[in-house]
Amino acid sequence: MTQAPPSIAPASGKLAILLPGLGAVSTTFIAGIEAILQGLGRPIGSLTQMGRVRLGKRTEMKVPLIKEFVPLASLDDLVFGSWDCVPDNAYEAALKAGVLEPTLIEKLRSKLEAIQPWTAAFDQKFVQKLHGTHCKRGTRRALAEQIGNDIDAFLKKTGASRAVMIWCGSTEVFTQSGPHHASLAALEKALDHDEQAIAPSILYAYAALTRGIPYANGAPNLTVDIPAMQELANQTHAPIAGKDFKTGQTLMKTILAPGLRARHLGIRGWYSTNILGNRDGEVLDDPQSFKTKEVSKLSVLGTILQPELNPELYSDLYHKVCINYYPPRGDNKEGWDNIDIFGWLGYAMQIKIDFLCRDSILAAPIVLDLALFLDLAKRAGLKGIQEWLSFYLKSPMVKEGLYPEHNLFHQEMKLMNTLRWMMGETQITHLGIDYYQA
Amino acid sequence: MTQAPPSIAPASGKLAILLPGLGAVSTTFIAGIEAILQGLGRPIGSLTQMGRVRLGKRTEMKVPLIKEFVPLASLDDLVFGSWDCVPDNAYEAALKAGVLEPTLIEKLRSKLEAIQPWTAAFDQKFVQKLHGTHCKRGTRRALAEQIGNDIDAFLKKTGASRAVMIWCGSTEVFTQSGPHHASLAALEKALDHDEQAIAPSILYAYAALTRGIPYANGAPNLTVDIPAMQELANQTHAPIAGKDFKTGQTLMKTILAPGLRARHLGIRGWYSTNILGNRDGEVLDDPQSFKTKEVSKLSVLGTILQPELNPELYSDLYHKVCINYYPPRGDNKEGWDNIDIFGWLGYAMQIKIDFLCRDSILAAPIVLDLALFLDLAKRAGLKGIQEWLSFYLKSPMVKEGLYPEHNLFHQEMKLMNTLRWMMGETQITHLGIDYYQA
Amino acid sequence: MTQAPPSIAPASGKLAILLPGLGAVSTTFIAGIEAILQGLGRPIGSLTQMGRVRLGKRTEMKVPLIKEFVPLASLDDLVFGSWDCVPDNAYEAALKAGVLEPTLIEKLRSKLEAIQPWTAAFDQKFVQKLHGTHCKRGTRRALAEQIGNDIDAFLKKTGASRAVMIWCGSTEVFTQSGPHHASLAALEKALDHDEQAIAPSILYAYAALTRGIPYANGAPNLTVDIPAMQELANQTHAPIAGKDFKTGQTLMKTILAPGLRARHLGIRGWYSTNILGNRDGEVLDDPQSFKTKEVSKLSVLGTILQPELNPELYSDLYHKVCINYYPPRGDNKEGWDNIDIFGWLGYAMQIKIDFLCRDSILAAPIVLDLALFLDLAKRAGLKGIQEWLSFYLKSPMVKEGLYPEHNLFHQEMKLMNTLRWMMGETQITHLGIDYYQA
Amino acid sequence: MTQAPPSIAPASGKLAILLPGLGAVSTTFIAGIEAILQGLGRPIGSLTQMGRVRLGKRTEMKVPLIKEFVPLASLDDLVFGSWDCVPDNAYEAALKAGVLEPTLIEKLRSKLEAIQPWTAAFDQKFVQKLHGTHCKRGTRRALAEQIGNDIDAFLKKTGASRAVMIWCGSTEVFTQSGPHHASLAALEKALDHDEQAIAPSILYAYAALTRGIPYANGAPNLTVDIPAMQELANQTHAPIAGKDFKTGQTLMKTILAPGLRARHLGIRGWYSTNILGNRDGEVLDDPQSFKTKEVSKLSVLGTILQPELNPELYSDLYHKVCINYYPPRGDNKEGWDNIDIFGWLGYAMQIKIDFLCRDSILAAPIVLDLALFLDLAKRAGLKGIQEWLSFYLKSPMVKEGLYPEHNLFHQEMKLMNTLRWMMGETQITHLGIDYYQA
Repeated sequence: MTQAPPSIAPASGKLAILLPGLGAVSTTFIAGIEAILQGLGRPIGSLTQMGRVRLGKRTEMKVPLIKEFVPLASLDDLVFGSWDCVPDNAYEAALKAGVLEPTLIEKLRSKLEAIQPWTAAFDQKFVQKLHGTHCKRGTRRALAEQIGNDIDAFLKKTGASRAVMIWCGSTEVFTQSGPHHASLAALEKALDHDEQAIAPSILYAYAALTRGIPYANGAPNLTVDIPAMQELANQTHAPIAGKDFKTGQTLMKTILAPGLRARHLGIRGWYSTNILGNRDGEVLDDPQSFKTKEVSKLSVLGTILQPELNPELYSDLYHKVCINYYPPRGDNKEGWDNIDIFGWLGYAMQIKIDFLCRDSILAAPIVLDLALFLDLAKRAGLKGIQEWLSFYLKSPMVKEGLYPEHNLFHQEMKLMNTLRWMMGETQITHLGIDYYQA
Repeated sequence: MTQAPPSIAPASGKLAILLPGLGAVSTTFIAGIEAILQGLGRPIGSLTQMGRVRLGKRTEMKVPLIKEFVPLASLDDLVFGSWDCVPDNAYEAALKAGVLEPTLIEKLRSKLEAIQPWTAAFDQKFVQKLHGTHCKRGTRRALAEQIGNDIDAFLKKTGASRAVMIWCGSTEVFTQSGPHHASLAALEKALDHDEQAIAPSILYAYAALTRGIPYANGAPNLTVDIPAMQELANQTHAPIAGKDFKTGQTLMKTILAPGLRARHLGIRGWYSTNILGNRDGEVLDDPQSFKTKEVSKLSVLGTILQPELNPELYSDLYHKVCINYYPPRGDNKEGWDNIDIFGWLGYAMQIKIDFLCRDSILAAPIVLDLALFLDLAKRAGLKGIQEWLSFYLKSPMVKEGLYPEHNLFHQEMKLMNTLRWMMGETQITHLGIDYYQA
Repeated sequence: MTQAPPSIAPASGKLAILLPGLGAVSTTFIAGIEAILQGLGRPIGSLTQMGRVRLGKRTEMKVPLIKEFVPLASLDDLVFGSWDCVPDNAYEAALKAGVLEPTLIEKLRSKLEAIQPWTAAFDQKFVQKLHGTHCKRGTRRALAEQIGNDIDAFLKKTGASRAVMIWCGSTEVFTQSGPHHASLAALEKALDHDEQAIAPSILYAYAALTRGIPYANGAPNLTVDIPAMQELANQTHAPIAGKDFKTGQTLMKTILAPGLRARHLGIRGWYSTNILGNRDGEVLDDPQSFKTKEVSKLSVLGTILQPELNPELYSDLYHKVCINYYPPRGDNKEGWDNIDIFGWLGYAMQIKIDFLCRDSILAAPIVLDLALFLDLAKRAGLKGIQEWLSFYLKSPMVKEGLYPEHNLFHQEMKLMNTLRWMMGETQITHLGIDYYQA
Repeated sequence: MTQAPPSIAPASGKLAILLPGLGAVSTTFIAGIEAILQGLGRPIGSLTQMGRVRLGKRTEMKVPLIKEFVPLASLDDLVFGSWDCVPDNAYEAALKAGVLEPTLIEKLRSKLEAIQPWTAAFDQKFVQKLHGTHCKRGTRRALAEQIGNDIDAFLKKTGASRAVMIWCGSTEVFTQSGPHHASLAALEKALDHDEQAIAPSILYAYAALTRGIPYANGAPNLTVDIPAMQELANQTHAPIAGKDFKTGQTLMKTILAPGLRARHLGIRGWYSTNILGNRDGEVLDDPQSFKTKEVSKLSVLGTILQPELNPELYSDLYHKVCINYYPPRGDNKEGWDNIDIFGWLGYAMQIKIDFLCRDSILAAPIVLDLALFLDLAKRAGLKGIQEWLSFYLKSPMVKEGLYPEHNLFHQEMKLMNTLRWMMGETQITHLGIDYYQA
C-alpha cells in the first residue's frame, strides 16, 4: 500500500449526535449511552467501545482496544438532538418502544425527558402508515433551512465543536434515482421549485452536508446514494456512509453465505421470513415501503456468491424475502431462514436458522460506531463515501465502478486494515508463511 | 512478506491416493471421482476443481480457476488404494454406506469392484464398536512394515510417480501424547518393543512419512500431531496436515462464531447436538471414541472468540456438544444448535440452527482438496505442518508457539494468500483505500 | 343414542373413482393403489386399509381392522376415471408431478398410461395461473351434460356398479354463496342461462349428484357447501363431504390447538408460513386463489379454541397464514409455525414447528378413505352432509345451526363412534369408572 | 354406564396443601395463588379455575365453568405447608428459583416469608446432587412419624378441615418395586427395621395416607405406585394419583403422537433433547436420577401408538430422550424434538418441534388442579387410584390389568366424562348422528 497514513485531529470538545427519528432505535441508543455512563450496562455490540485490533505478528499478542488505538470521541462528550413527527420526548418514546425494561428507563428518566424532538420534515406520501402530528411546514427548500436552523441552534446551545447525523427514521416508499438527483445543481433547483418528489430524508442529509457534517443512512431510503449528495459531500469535505443498518436476518445472511461460498457449496434456494410487531413492522406492512426494504435485503447475496463466476453453484438460486407484521412480538423480531444447498455430485442438504433477535438492541451499537467512526474520518480528512464502514450496512455505498462487498468478513478485514493504515501499522494478510520458513 | 515464492515441480504422472478406511467417506470420494470423470456429477464443494482466486485489484476482474492458477494433479491421473478391517470391495462398501443412490453406484460398478482393500492394521482396543475380520497380524513394527509393503507394491503396480495418504478411518479412543510420542527415536523404540499403546493410525502415518509421502488426518485421532511424527516429516520432506475433517456442525460453528465475534455480540451458551445413524455414529456411541471427538469439537470456539481478550463477552460461555446414535437417519446427519447471545446492555437473544447435512457428501471434496494441495506442497518443497490447509480441519495443527486459527474466514484468507504467494502474486488485504485516494 | 343402526348393502361389483384433476394428488393416489395391489408399497395413512377400531372394554382387547368390521369396497374393485385441462395421461402426469420415484412409476407404466383424462370443463377466470389446452366447449348447462356423459360412458365401459367423485383439481378463485346458489331451482336456471359466475367445480358436482353419486371436495372451493347442492344431494340420496383435504400445516394445527386448549394455555399469536414449489403452489401464488385457501386455513382455530367461551385465553389471538411459491422444493412442502403461548400468571412461552411434509403423500390416503367411506355411507342409506368425515377436511361441512368440529380428536371420536353405531356396537366414552367400582 | 353418581360432601372450611419440596414449582404455585387472590395475575393453565365443561347437545350451548359445575374448594380457603432440605422460606426460595419476576415476588413478600419449611426427611443417596442442611434425624419409622406430627400440628394451627399432599420435590434415583413394597405389612416391617432402601418420598406419602389424606406424586419416583401404598390408600379411603407432572416436552409428545396415530402415519424415530438450567436440571445431571426420569419419559409412546396392533407403522420406532444441564437457561427449559415419520407407500417426512417453555409455569396449575380434584374425589367417596387424573401425569397409574392411557385427548375425555358422571349428566360421545336423522 503506497497511500500514506492521514494526520488526524484530536477529538476535543463535545460531539453532537443528530438523529432524525426518535423511535425505538434512537431511544435505545440514547438511553443506552446514559446507562453505560452511569454503570448500568455495557456497550455490547460496539467495536469502538469493546473491540480490539490485532497488530503485528500472531506471536506478539499485541491487541489494543480500538478506542486506545485510534483517537475517538469519548462517550461523555456526546450530546443528542433529534427530530420526530410525534411530539413524545425520549422518555415517553422509549416507554412506547417497549425495547428496554421500564425499570431501567425510569432510572434514566430526567436525562431522557430533557430530549424533546424538534418538529419533523414529514410527508405522509413517503411513509404511508404513519400520521405526523409534530411537523414543520413550508416548501422543500424552507424545510431544509429549518432543519439547518435546528442544527445551528443546537450546536450553539451545547457548545459542541463537531456533529454527526445518523438517520434513524422510518423506511420511505421506494423511489429511484432521477434527474433531480443527478447533480447538485439539479437538486438545488428542485429544492427551489419545491419538487414533491424530493424525499424528506434528503432534506436532512442536505442540511447536514452543506455544513460539512458527516451523514450515515440507517434506512434503505434513497438519500445520500445519489450523485447530487456525493458531489455535495466532496465539496464540503463531509464523510458519508449508507445504507440500511445490518442487523438481524441480513447480518446472519452475510455471515453464512460467505461460509457456504468459501466451501463452494451450491445454493438452490434461500427463503427468509420475518415476524415483527414494532413501528418498523407496521411501516413495512405498506407494500411501497416494503419494496424499498426488499431491494436492500435481496441485494446481499449477489456479490457474495458471484453467480457469474460460479454459475454451476449459484446461478439458479431462488431468493425470497418476506416481512410480516405480527403484533404479539413487539420489537422482538424473529427471522426464519430455510436454505437449500447442495454438495458433492449435487446431493441436497438443508439449513434452517431461527434468529430470535431484538432489532433495536442490534441497531443501537451500530449508531454509536458509525457516529464515532464518521467523526474520526472527518478529523482524518477523509471525505465522501467511507467504504470501510460497509461492515455495518445492508447496502453499502461504493465508488462508481466498484462492486460492493457484502461478505461480512471482507468488510471486517477492510475496517480493521483501514484502522491499521490510519495509524501506520502493517496490514494483516493471514499468510503467515514466515512462521514456518524463518 | 519477504519470503520468496517457491519453485514448483510439474504434476506429471499418476498420483496414488492411499486411504486407510474404505467406508462411507472413502467410497463417496472414489465413486465421486469416477462419476465426475464420466460426466455423471460435478465436484461441488471442491476448491481445487471449482474454486477461483481473485488476483489484483477489484476493478481488474482477474479471477482464474485455482486449478488453472497453480499446477495440480489432474483427476484422471488419480489411482486409489485402501485398507479396511472389513473385506468388502469399494462397490459393496458404497452400497452398505447408503450415501449415494444405488442407481449411480451401479453405473460405476466395475471401477469400484476393482478396488479391493488390503488387510488392515486393526486393534479393537482402539475402536471398541467395530469387529475387524480382515486384518494383518504381527508386532507394531511388523504391521508398519506390511503397510509399507502394500504401498510399495501399489506404486509399482500402478506406475504412480507420487502418493498422498489421507486417513478416512474411524475415530480411535482418546489418547494423550506420551513419552513414546515425544521423539522419533522414542517412537522407533516403541515400535521395536511392540508397544501396545501405539495406535494403529500411527502405523499408517509412519509408513507414509518414512517414504516422504504427505499425510492428512481426517479423524480426531492423535497421529501426526506428536513430536515424533513432525520430526519424521521434516526429515523426509513430507507435508502433513490434520486433524478431523471440518464438515457439518463444526463447519457451521466456525462460520457463525466469527460473525458474532466480528460484531462483538456476547455469548452465554452454545448447545450443539447431533443425530446420525452411520458407522461413524455407532463408533462414537462408545464414550472413549466420543471423548476424542468431543475434545476436537469443543476446541474451536476458544481461539475464535479469545475470551482472554474479551472477558465480558465470552468468558462465561457454557459450551456443550452431544452426539447421539440415531439409526433412522443413516449417513444423513442432523445437527441442531442453540446459541444464547446477548447485545447492547446485555439484552438476550437466541439463534437456533438446524443443519440437515450429509456427512460423507461434505467430507468427500475435502479428501480431494487435501490430496491435491498436499501433493502441490510436496512439489513446492514445503514440508512439515501445512497450516494453510487449516481451512479443512476441525483441529488444525500449528507450529509450537502459535495458536491455531479456527475462524473459517481467516483460514480461507490464509489459503488464498498462500496460493497467491506461491505464484508470486500480490497479497489481498481488503484495505482498498487507494480506490478512493487515487 | 336412540338412532337404530342402518342396514348396509354389500360392496359387490366394481366401484368407479371419478377424479376431476389428474395432477399430483390424483396420480399419487392412483399409482399408489396399483403399487399396493402389486405389493410394491403399503397404504400408510389410510384408516380404511390399516386402521383398527376398539370395541367394548379396555380389558377385552377387541380391536379389529376397520375393513374387517365394516363392509368396504376392496382395492381390486376400484376403477379410475379423470378429467384434466392438460392432455397428459396418468403416467406422464405422475412423472411431471415429481412426487413418486421415477423407478416406481416406471414399474406401473402400462396401468398409468391407460388412464387418459377426459377434456375438462375449464374456465381460466377461476384458476388464473393455469392455461387449459384440453377443454370442453359449450354453455355451463352443456358442460355439465358432457361431464355426465363421460360418467355414464365410463360406468358402462367398466361395468362399475357404483361410483364416487372426489375433487382433486386446483383451488379456484374466492367466491361467495350468492343467489344462484341459494336453491336447486335457482342453480338450474343459472345453468340454463349460462351464468358465468357458476364455477366449473360446481358442474362436476352437479353431474355427479344428479346421478346420486357421492361427492367429496378436496379443495377449498365453494362447491357442495351451497344450499342448491345440499338440496340436490338429499333428493338423490347422495352423501356429500367437504371441503379441503386436511394435510400438512392445518393437520398439525388441529392436532396441536386442541392440546393447548385442553390444558387451558393461552395463545397470543399463531404465525404459519408455507413454502412449496408444485402446481398447487403456483396456483396459490395468485392472490384470488390464495384468498380461497386462506379463508379455509384461518377458520380452524375458532371452533377449537372458542374464544367466546375463553376470552382471557384466546380473544386476542393474532392468526396469520402465508403461502409462498418456492420452486426449489417441488411437491415437498415445508410448513413453519411459530406459536406464542402464555401460562400461569401470563408468562410467555413459544412453540416452533417445522414440518417437512409431502403434500400429495398426505393427500392420497385421504382420497382413498373418503371414496370408500362415502361409498359405505351410500350403501348404508345415509345422504347429504356426512359430518363424521370431518376428520379429513380443513373446512368441514355441517348442518345449519351446528358449529363445525375442527378438533382432530373430536373428529376421530365422531368417526369411530359412527362406525360403532353403524354396526350396533357400544359407544366409547373413556369414562371407565366401572373398572374401579366393579 | 350403570354406576350411579356419587354423593359429594360440600367443600366447607380450609383446605391444607402439603408440599414436600419448596423449590421452583412450589413457590411458583404458592406465589401464584397469592397473586391471583390479589388480582395480580390469572390462573392460566388451570381447568379448575378457567375450564368449562360442555353439557348436553352441541346446539344447547350449555358450557358452565367447571368450578360452578362441581363443588371445589375455593382459592381463599387454601393454606400451605411445606418441607425442604434447605431452610429458605418461600420468599427466599422464590427469588432463588428465578421463575417469577422479582417485582412480583416483592409484592407478595410478607405472605411468602410466612411460609417457613419444616425440616425434610432427606437422604443424599437418593438425590446425589443435593446437599441437605435442614433435615430431620432418625430411623425411617421415626422420620415418618415426625412428618405426621408436622401435619397434625399444621392442621391444628390453621384449623383446616381437610388436607391434600402433592409431592413437588426432586427426582430420586431409580429404584424398582421390591419385597419391601409388596404389601402394607412388608412396608410396615421395613419401617420398623429402618430399611435404608425405603425412599424418603415414601415416608411422606405414608404419613399422609395413614391419615386418609389424598396424595399426588409430581416426580417420577417410585412412591404410591407400589402395592403397599395402594393397600393403605384403600384402607384409609384416600385417593391417590401419579406420577410425574406432564409439562413441556412430554406434554407435547402426548398431544402430537395421538394425532399421528389418528392419521395412521408411521414413525421411524423420535429424538427428544432438553436443555434446562434449574435445580431440576442439576439433579437430572446425575445418571441415577436421569434413569428414573428417562423411564417415565420413554413410556408414553407405547400405549399411544400400540405397536403390537400397528406393527407396520410403529414397531421399528427408535425413541431417544436426552436431558442436558445447561445453566444459561435457568428455569426456561427448551425441548427440541425431531420426528421421522412416513406416509403413503413409505415416503419419509420430518417434523421438528422447538418448545421454549417454562417448567414451573406449566407445573403450577397442575399442582392446583390435582389438589382441588383430589379433594373433590375424597369428598365424593372415591378412594385409591384416580385414573381420571391421568391427564396431568407422564406415567399415569392404573388398576392392575389395565393399560394406562397416555393419549392426552382420551385423558381429557375421561376427565370430562368423569365430571359429567359425578353430577349425573349424559356422557359425550361425539357421535352426533341424531342431528342428521332427527
